[in-house]
Amino acid sequence: MLQGIVEKTPGGVGAVLMGYDGIAIDQYFLPLDDVDLQLVSVEYANILKDIRKTIEVLGTGAMEEVAIRTSQFYVILRALGQDYFVALTVGSDGNFGKGRYLLMKEAPRFLEALQ
Amino acid sequence: MLQGIVEKTPGGVGAVLMGYDGIAIDQYFLPLDDVDLQLVSVEYANILKDIRKTIEVLGTGAMEEVAIRTSQFYVILRALGQDYFVALTVGSDGNFGKGRYLLMKEAPRFLEALQ
Repeated sequence: MLQGIVEKTPGGVGAVLMGYDGIAIDQYFLPLDDVDLQLVSVEYANILKDIRKTIEVLGTGAMEEVAIRTSQFYVILRALGQDYFVALTVGSDGNFGKGRYLLMKEAPRFLEALQ
Repeated sequence: MLQGIVEKTPGGVGAVLMGYDGIAIDQYFLPLDDVDLQLVSVEYANILKDIRKTIEVLGTGAMEEVAIRTSQFYVILRALGQDYFVALTVGSDGNFGKGRYLLMKEAPRFLEALQ
């Protein structure tokens, strides 16, 4: 499923399914120079934990999705229940909207697979 | 400019221009029950500071935009140089893409006004 999302998203470079504890359950990444995937995954988890805490403080509903755009990458993080999330990385010239759509569409199947 | 963005975005509820220190420079909000705008603004600034720090650690380019979707709201945060950012809140049934586009388009004018 992760590989399918990366391959169907123009500019997709990798996807990882992980827990908020920073441990990756499964991942599919194209070979990339100069990117430490373990570090990236742990940092994603930390960002999401912080945002989830903030949203709880603000009382603005359950966290569904966080998208971060830098000059090099888009990262789309989608919450999967209370314990897991899936992260998709797309090059900044890629199709961000398609990636968002695929993650949203596949979220129920990920949740099912995690049971 | 903030009012224009809120009014041109279907579902737009408010926009704020602020520093990473959590101090709002200007804001335009529709009257909303049960939302503490001061608290929301400070929390936005904290989230962005954390994400910026993480992006620096990861070395994945300059932070441009962060979008957070909850069951009630979309919040789009756009970096304006090193010290400021603009945040737009849109109801979850609103036009998120239009809001993103308007913030991106107006970013150079905000930067100019901050000089």
